[in-house]
Amino acid sequence: MPRVSQDQLDARRREILTGARTCFARHGYEGATVRRLEEEIGLSRGAIFHHFRDKDSLFLAVAEDDAATMVATVAQHGLVQVMRDLLARTEPDVTGWLGSQLEVSRRLRTDPEFAKRWAARSEAVAAATRERLQRQLEAGVLRADVPIGILAQFLELAYDGLVLHLATGRPVQDLEAVLNLVEAAVRRQ
Amino acid sequence: MPRVSQDQLDARRREILTGARTCFARHGYEGATVRRLEEEIGLSRGAIFHHFRDKDSLFLAVAEDDAATMVATVAQHGLVQVMRDLLARTEPDVTGWLGSQLEVSRRLRTDPEFAKRWAARSEAVAAATRERLQRQLEAGVLRADVPIGILAQFLELAYDGLVLHLATGRPVQDLEAVLNLVEAAVRRQ
Repeated sequence: MPRVSQDQLDARRREILTGARTCFARHGYEGATVRRLEEEIGLSRGAIFHHFRDKDSLFLAVAEDDAATMVATVAQHGLVQVMRDLLARTEPDVTGWLGSQLEVSRRLRTDPEFAKRWAARSEAVAAATRERLQRQLEAGVLRADVPIGILAQFLELAYDGLVLHLATGRPVQDLEAVLNLVEAAVRRQ
Repeated sequence: MPRVSQDQLDARRREILTGARTCFARHGYEGATVRRLEEEIGLSRGAIFHHFRDKDSLFLAVAEDDAATMVATVAQHGLVQVMRDLLARTEPDVTGWLGSQLEVSRRLRTDPEFAKRWAARSEAVAAATRERLQRQLEAGVLRADVPIGILAQFLELAYDGLVLHLATGRPVQDLEAVLNLVEAAVRRQ
């Protein structure tokens, strides 16, 4: 058997995640059956589940991929920039993926194991947000009268609101002005 | 056949909505089968669907019921108070009902007829929010540098964020302080 290099493994993994994301976006979590995952990814179930234990793991891996991108943007430009980027990308595959995240809300409430795996992903973004705010505080651009933990949760609330707004297909026209308001609320007055 | 009074009809309708809300909260939109609706409401499908055309209509009627309560609270105390009330009631039947609203996000994006019926409900709350803000502006307690439409959408974004936060079972400990921040952001500085 020929040895498969790490690069090849990584490329295959990436290929699977890209197809899985599209499949979850188009059909939702429930609707993304193994057959549809095979079709969208272009690989057999054997090949897919050689890399990911099950559908949950595949879904969480796509979410972790998102979280990694978000953490990088948050570190450099803040959580409001993540929201602006989201606002600039309202094509069906983006909002569909957000929607599939809403679909698992029941499991997040009722399935502690699933919730724990999901929380690790959110915590990475939350930690990056707090670090970024701390740097902004030190730079004197952040308001100093409210604890950083509260400011971070305020931004996360806005982010969650944006996810729900976009995932339900509501109009985006005024949201840029709304995000300016969100940003101003955490800045030094 | 004895004539049924309007009061009796209203009481029956209310009884159905209460049971349906519990059923949607416990099992989600998809999980609320006709059999489970019968069990939770304590009436036969014939009796239930004499009052409501189908499951969609039942679901939307529960949502309209919510909207009516929200409109009344918004008119008197504002949308932030609606959020505070929600924060004070995090029992499973409340967060479960919020969760079932997330579950229909895909349909809101892909089924224009369903989206239209849902939107009427959101628009009533949005209109009440704008009216309340207008009165606050006239009373001099609202910031005057941002249009009311934007302030209203900012509050709706926070409300949506809270719905997603609670529906996914995340901790609520700091949210009161976060809501104070939301409220302060629309007030005159």
